[in-house]
Amino acid sequence: MQSAGDIVYVGDTLLSDVVRGGLANHGDTLLTGHSCSPTETDMSDEPTVRFSPWETSVDVEEGTTVLEAADRAGLSIESLCGGEGLCGTCKVVVDDGADCLSAVTDADELLLSEEQLESGYRLSCRSDVECGPVDVTVPNVSQNTGGVVLTEGRELEVDLDPVVTNYHLELSPPSLSDNTADLERVGEALKENYEVSIEEIDRVVHQELPNLMRGAEVEDKLHATVTVYDDEEIIDVTPGWDETMYGLAIDIGTTTIAVYLVDLRTADRVAVSSRMNPQSTFGGDIMSRMRHTRRSENGREELQDAIVDGVNELVDEVVEEAEIDPDNVYEAVFVGNTAMHHLFLGIDPHYVAGSPYVAANHAPVTVKARELDIDINPAGYLYWLPISGGWVGPDKVSVLLVSEHHKREELTVCVDIGTNGEISVGNSERMWSTSAPAGPALEGAEITHGVRARDGAVEFVTIDDETLEPDLEVIGDEPPIGICGSGIIDVLAELFEAGVIDQRGQFQEELLDHPRLRRNAHDVLEYVLVFADESGIDGDVVVTQNDLREIQQAKAAIQAGTRVLMDELDIDTVDRVVLAGAFGNYIDPESAMTVGLYPDVDFDAVESLGNAAGIGAQLALLNRDKRAEAMEIVDHVEYFEIAGTDVFRNNFMESMYVPHQRIELYPSVRERIGEFDEGRGVVVREGRSAER
Amino acid sequence: MQSAGDIVYVGDTLLSDVVRGGLANHGDTLLTGHSCSPTETDMSDEPTVRFSPWETSVDVEEGTTVLEAADRAGLSIESLCGGEGLCGTCKVVVDDGADCLSAVTDADELLLSEEQLESGYRLSCRSDVECGPVDVTVPNVSQNTGGVVLTEGRELEVDLDPVVTNYHLELSPPSLSDNTADLERVGEALKENYEVSIEEIDRVVHQELPNLMRGAEVEDKLHATVTVYDDEEIIDVTPGWDETMYGLAIDIGTTTIAVYLVDLRTADRVAVSSRMNPQSTFGGDIMSRMRHTRRSENGREELQDAIVDGVNELVDEVVEEAEIDPDNVYEAVFVGNTAMHHLFLGIDPHYVAGSPYVAANHAPVTVKARELDIDINPAGYLYWLPISGGWVGPDKVSVLLVSEHHKREELTVCVDIGTNGEISVGNSERMWSTSAPAGPALEGAEITHGVRARDGAVEFVTIDDETLEPDLEVIGDEPPIGICGSGIIDVLAELFEAGVIDQRGQFQEELLDHPRLRRNAHDVLEYVLVFADESGIDGDVVVTQNDLREIQQAKAAIQAGTRVLMDELDIDTVDRVVLAGAFGNYIDPESAMTVGLYPDVDFDAVESLGNAAGIGAQLALLNRDKRAEAMEIVDHVEYFEIAGTDVFRNNFMESMYVPHQRIELYPSVRERIGEFDEGRGVVVREGRSAER
Repeated sequence: MQSAGDIVYVGDTLLSDVVRGGLANHGDTLLTGHSCSPTETDMSDEPTVRFSPWETSVDVEEGTTVLEAADRAGLSIESLCGGEGLCGTCKVVVDDGADCLSAVTDADELLLSEEQLESGYRLSCRSDVECGPVDVTVPNVSQNTGGVVLTEGRELEVDLDPVVTNYHLELSPPSLSDNTADLERVGEALKENYEVSIEEIDRVVHQELPNLMRGAEVEDKLHATVTVYDDEEIIDVTPGWDETMYGLAIDIGTTTIAVYLVDLRTADRVAVSSRMNPQSTFGGDIMSRMRHTRRSENGREELQDAIVDGVNELVDEVVEEAEIDPDNVYEAVFVGNTAMHHLFLGIDPHYVAGSPYVAANHAPVTVKARELDIDINPAGYLYWLPISGGWVGPDKVSVLLVSEHHKREELTVCVDIGTNGEISVGNSERMWSTSAPAGPALEGAEITHGVRARDGAVEFVTIDDETLEPDLEVIGDEPPIGICGSGIIDVLAELFEAGVIDQRGQFQEELLDHPRLRRNAHDVLEYVLVFADESGIDGDVVVTQNDLREIQQAKAAIQAGTRVLMDELDIDTVDRVVLAGAFGNYIDPESAMTVGLYPDVDFDAVESLGNAAGIGAQLALLNRDKRAEAMEIVDHVEYFEIAGTDVFRNNFMESMYVPHQRIELYPSVRERIGEFDEGRGVVVREGRSAER
Repeated sequence: MQSAGDIVYVGDTLLSDVVRGGLANHGDTLLTGHSCSPTETDMSDEPTVRFSPWETSVDVEEGTTVLEAADRAGLSIESLCGGEGLCGTCKVVVDDGADCLSAVTDADELLLSEEQLESGYRLSCRSDVECGPVDVTVPNVSQNTGGVVLTEGRELEVDLDPVVTNYHLELSPPSLSDNTADLERVGEALKENYEVSIEEIDRVVHQELPNLMRGAEVEDKLHATVTVYDDEEIIDVTPGWDETMYGLAIDIGTTTIAVYLVDLRTADRVAVSSRMNPQSTFGGDIMSRMRHTRRSENGREELQDAIVDGVNELVDEVVEEAEIDPDNVYEAVFVGNTAMHHLFLGIDPHYVAGSPYVAANHAPVTVKARELDIDINPAGYLYWLPISGGWVGPDKVSVLLVSEHHKREELTVCVDIGTNGEISVGNSERMWSTSAPAGPALEGAEITHGVRARDGAVEFVTIDDETLEPDLEVIGDEPPIGICGSGIIDVLAELFEAGVIDQRGQFQEELLDHPRLRRNAHDVLEYVLVFADESGIDGDVVVTQNDLREIQQAKAAIQAGTRVLMDELDIDTVDRVVLAGAFGNYIDPESAMTVGLYPDVDFDAVESLGNAAGIGAQLALLNRDKRAEAMEIVDHVEYFEIAGTDVFRNNFMESMYVPHQRIELYPSVRERIGEFDEGRGVVVREGRSAER
């Protein structure tokens, strides 16, 4: 539906660069010093092992395990237990030469399913190479490389290190001469085999531990899978070996909730679902919901229940779609603005609603799933990313996890466009952020014919400089019913470039004889985008003077917020512009710059991250280091509260102009529009003027 | 009701030794190096401050605070904030010379109640001595000395260091220029004023934090009391200053539950209550309750609900009796045997019920009060002391916290007498413990006229060597209705000493012509303790040959368990015997040794600790180091499972004899009984024989 994708790009690596072969040495390879020397590879009597998907070969001495062979080939196969035949994570598929490997062991039979054994799976640490050649494929799940987070057709690579881990344990059954208690028996095995020192066990898992631990006895050993959270707490025990583990990334927007179900072993996003935020019944905007918490006796509970129910509906949907057991979902990472954070957790949002806009916490919040009745494993956890300050909430922190401009030297402006525009400006040295009250105009609300982006919405608009006739792109190729955010920005930019409105957004009255320009019944000037006979509604689709004012106010809030932060950093220009949110995906970058939504930069320095908040949540789900990084962001970013300040008010007045009162701040726009009447603040279109 | 108290003793210090004066230098005095030199005290123009209750005086320079004066006098007043006028813990009562102190400050008015100010209370850190003399009393709550745990008329001193602490905070209200979030604002103040780094906040407290933190504003500062658990988690926030904090010690016995309500600031036991364990409706003994968890579908929940309800009834009682708010109770420390531990926490007890008797955990268990619906502050915690091994549960660990023989060089036998006798033998170098199946005979059950210790129960018995007439002590001085545990031990000992029974417990048939000895209707020999005309029941009170056998079996289990452990340590004698449990309080030590209940030692080496399990729970409640010590005990004590072993069986057979098959193991008994017919195993009473 969309072309703006061309200019966007995520992270440092595109998918084309991350074909698995290119990643062989990425991440934590076990032993990079062991790459084959020419002498070794020339010894032709040594058996050869070939590894797919890399098509890498290595000659090894007889008796070498396939795991060791991979290591010598510079490849890295997952091996939690260090090649002891305990953890089951190093399994590979033998495509050819199975007879050249040592016989299938008890460990293979225990840790691989019957289907896997029939398909040629082996534990690579329990397969000695006895002759050659042997061809093996290392499945994704056994590759000790990064995963890839998908979004809007783009990919972001991430090292797989989730906070949840499954460990396979082989325990001696208790006896009179060895009557260590169950928990300590499990704890000692985790310590001995995996160097994990657990500190606690979930209360409910503890209740069943004696049974779960003894549920699978094979050849005088108890076999169990222990699921550990953050290397500290046992949150599940399953008899035998069950390596499945899933997580959720949940983005709670004021308007929409999105839930991503992710396989924690592969980073595969196995299901996605979204829906309206059911809190909307208590008010479409944040402020009316927050008022509800004070005005209604059980207001806070009602709002919390609504969002919990909404999340659970989506959780049920993704779990059903992926056909998995919700008990195998062990964590949900949440992002959202500060109000959504507070309302979801049942925290009184009163003091964040008004000046000085103080949140209840900065730190991340971790809550047992069963405490808030979220339908994943009840011993699992809900994890909210931290709050930077006031309205710069977990969603913004999540966006920064993706944009990473806190790590770069380039000066970057990052804008997450919504009812509040979350803005950050800076680089690795210093960064300011704020939240600007854009209002809902850019989402199509409070505009005469504004609609959300849906079938029939005018998405892109160009206006011919000479004829003033519009050229429209409509979602779903249906008769136009209204105009959505990206179209609205286009109209403002195109009317300005065509000389129809001046810098202040005022229609030029001398053009009133044009059929598309007129005064309406309320004596307000308007531009007819679609005449009734071509529209999908019962009448014309128009953009009025008041509509333009609403759009100008919205863009001015973001622009002024950005400039306040730039002033604070004492900079006039930036190196890079990053747009987050669906809106950024669909907006035309030229129009956006023409109206002044972001500073004047080269177009190829503008990136759109798509739903970066949701992507950041997935990164934090898949890699625990991202959580520490989120706290670094909170520490790094300084919060500037613009509400009620003179500096914002003054910048806002200047920013109401197109692109800005001081057009010299937008040299490329100035150059593009051609002849410009500085006195009237209007583009001069000679051809058309002559015509009149 | 009781005289055995004479020989018992707890800990290293009797109350007579712990009068407050003697404790002035005990505990962590702040500056012991500042004791007054003769030169200083001779400078008579310096004002004098006198401190009660110690009646200690000190001369100080003008301008010295009362807190500093106490320090110079070698006394220690509590001062959490280090004399910054923040914490309110250093308050004293000015008895005389109030005019000689600097004026009452804002801090005094903030942190002291109106009643306190009217009664002459001052913050000692905010009272400068300007002239003299000044007389102050340091109330218990401000004394930085140990508390005293009371039990059965004995006292055990303990340093006050509970895991719960109240901190008073003075916070700058948030502003646009200082919009740190609430939690971090509180965290930074805790760090700065008290060097406490909190890691989390209770989820429900978090929800109300914004309001609670702003509930009391005085002179542009927010005042709040923050209650912190284990220096890590905020579990309560109260506007203003509220120093009250209570804890519970809860002893869950198979038969009885006891709840002690303790003021955590003073160690005062402010209320106690006990009742039957309501689980009894599912079976009086542990095994039938454990069977119920398997036989009934919701058996485990039923047993858990029963005990939780029972505990809550008692909690409600003590809270009501002390007239305090249950929200001011922040912790409950639990002890009980391993089965009670499992059933209270809802853990499947199946595997601890049978060989190899493996518990679900050794480690202490900490659970939020609201998770198990215990009626204290819902954010507070339930803390179970650790399990040593199998049947040696938290109750036994608690007893060892009181007996402290794991710290001593003396070889000690410690026995907690109950349906199971929990036994430990050893010293600081090595210690073994076990659980011996004594059965209920020593509690009066399964004995023809056995009764629990209540009015009408025969408590002590002596039998005249010549006349064989008994002399009885009866509880409540009522007509005897039966015989309780201590009486039963007496009867066995006295019949043996009088030569009426032999070492095997067999009545000597040649005495059958005595009116108190006869054959009953079932042809069983019996001794008439009380004839019908003097008894409180409709008939004689007798002790039969079968009754004697039951008592012998009970004492033999304990004795054999003890000897197995002594054999394991390769020792023949011990230096000290410690008895725990109410039974130990009431038993006659001479009779107990005569029957062989414990090894032959000097009587003054026998101590009774009373309800040591409950006392140990109070120690762990009042001093967090005791919890670490409990884990040291678990690590130190080796568990010997005697069930089903030959070594126990053999020892049991020898221990069925009075006092033991090898009477030479009891030299003092042998000496006391005088002439003894080794062949027949019976005491020779010439006088009486001659009479016959």
